[in-house]
Amino acid sequence: MDSIRNGWFSELSPLWPGQCMSLEVDKVLYHEKSKFQDILVFKSKTYGNVLVLDGVIQVTERDEHSYQEMLAHIPLFCHPNPKKVLIIGGGDGGVAREVLKHPEVESVDMCEIDEKVIEVSKKYLPTLSTSFDNPKFTLNVQDGFEYMKQHQGIYDVIITDSSDPIGPASSLFEKSYYEHMEKSLKPGGILSSQGECTWLHLDLIKGMLDFCKTLYPTIGYSYTTIPTYPSGQIGFILCSKSPDVDLRNPVRKVTKEQLEKMDLKYYNTEIHKSAFVLPEFARKALQ
Amino acid sequence: MDSIRNGWFSELSPLWPGQCMSLEVDKVLYHEKSKFQDILVFKSKTYGNVLVLDGVIQVTERDEHSYQEMLAHIPLFCHPNPKKVLIIGGGDGGVAREVLKHPEVESVDMCEIDEKVIEVSKKYLPTLSTSFDNPKFTLNVQDGFEYMKQHQGIYDVIITDSSDPIGPASSLFEKSYYEHMEKSLKPGGILSSQGECTWLHLDLIKGMLDFCKTLYPTIGYSYTTIPTYPSGQIGFILCSKSPDVDLRNPVRKVTKEQLEKMDLKYYNTEIHKSAFVLPEFARKALQ
Repeated sequence: MDSIRNGWFSELSPLWPGQCMSLEVDKVLYHEKSKFQDILVFKSKTYGNVLVLDGVIQVTERDEHSYQEMLAHIPLFCHPNPKKVLIIGGGDGGVAREVLKHPEVESVDMCEIDEKVIEVSKKYLPTLSTSFDNPKFTLNVQDGFEYMKQHQGIYDVIITDSSDPIGPASSLFEKSYYEHMEKSLKPGGILSSQGECTWLHLDLIKGMLDFCKTLYPTIGYSYTTIPTYPSGQIGFILCSKSPDVDLRNPVRKVTKEQLEKMDLKYYNTEIHKSAFVLPEFARKALQ
Repeated sequence: MDSIRNGWFSELSPLWPGQCMSLEVDKVLYHEKSKFQDILVFKSKTYGNVLVLDGVIQVTERDEHSYQEMLAHIPLFCHPNPKKVLIIGGGDGGVAREVLKHPEVESVDMCEIDEKVIEVSKKYLPTLSTSFDNPKFTLNVQDGFEYMKQHQGIYDVIITDSSDPIGPASSLFEKSYYEHMEKSLKPGGILSSQGECTWLHLDLIKGMLDFCKTLYPTIGYSYTTIPTYPSGQIGFILCSKSPDVDLRNPVRKVTKEQLEKMDLKYYNTEIHKSAFVLPEFARKALQ
């Protein structure tokens, strides 16, 4: 547990050399190595409970809504009638919570490789892991690649909520993964994946968008602000099997009533549109 | 210099309790107390040279363009013909550099209270302090309030590039300061001020927008992403003396040629518009 010193957790990684976000620790709640990764949960002084995998912050209770809402609602509001949704990763339950806010959704399958993450989230992140008992929800503790091989052409939306391209999630940033998703999606299907940060990983993002272009007629890149992710923001890769989808302009607009009912803290239709507008340096590199 | 330990600079402050950004230090270049504040400049491992005032990061060479460009170009592109510009603060020179990229601008007056910041920036931040010798530029080492009392009704645009509301800049977040600016602006004049972060200081921002409403017919709040500011973003308070200005839709659009010529790394017309679109929690609080 050398990432905690003098009462502070520090997020050091070769993925963001020379910079480090730290959170003050109130109490360590859990720390063990699972079959796949190092899992740490602590209660922070000002960000609520925090889930850390292999030394990298995955979720804090204070700002998680930004990531979960934007990762889930951008593809869902772009789909005219999303009935069947697959989540790859997402073991904390936050994405499932958001997906199930759409009454159109009839079933959510989740494929999380690390059962321990689910267990720990049920215990320490109760505001995220609200959907594991929902009758529409099915959990598969399994590798996403294997699962998709057995489930082709059936999903309206596939959402990948993964950690970074070091460790168990590294294959989720490769072309073959996007080929599998293309096969598992129905015609007109849409995917959304964790897509790193333009301030840190522009080349990685460019490479991913380049191979996505060869697989999908419609692609896009959007992002959200989130204080506890490296450099304060994170992006999303969006692809659709339909050439007619306008990812920037959701076909379903969230109404004022829905905003309340769905308890949306970050997402609204205007922020959906503006999430695709990139600063000049990123626009130039990714255009 | 206890903010540097084990080769890392850490930005601790009661303004963002329980969280801390750190940058790895290559070499300390300068560290002294001026009449007004503690001034530190270090060469970082991955963010270029870094200017720190009273323990808070003001500028890193790697990401400063985001802040300087958005603070300067949003009001300037909203003004049909900005000839006379006043900068309050901005001792590093970055805002002046951006303002002087507009050929319409005939004169830039800068009012910086701490001469030491200018000296240090000339020496250690040469890509920012490019305009101090420009014939259009006049430096006043003086308190902004006093300066404005003597210069009324003459500015098209006033830009406030300040540190946080603790220390020498605290009065720049108060109503009386916005009254002074109102008097120094010409009819149709526009101001832009450092406006803190919605993730951290929503109440402060709300209070400022509330008093701005009583002074100006047009107000707005926009923001930019910037990795080395607390929580990864910072906002801007915008006010205009004209009821007809649409702050979200700049009256002058930056052309493709201008983007190149002005060497814009962050600003473009689309990001100008989307900078005003707030996440739901902030929209609700500030509406």
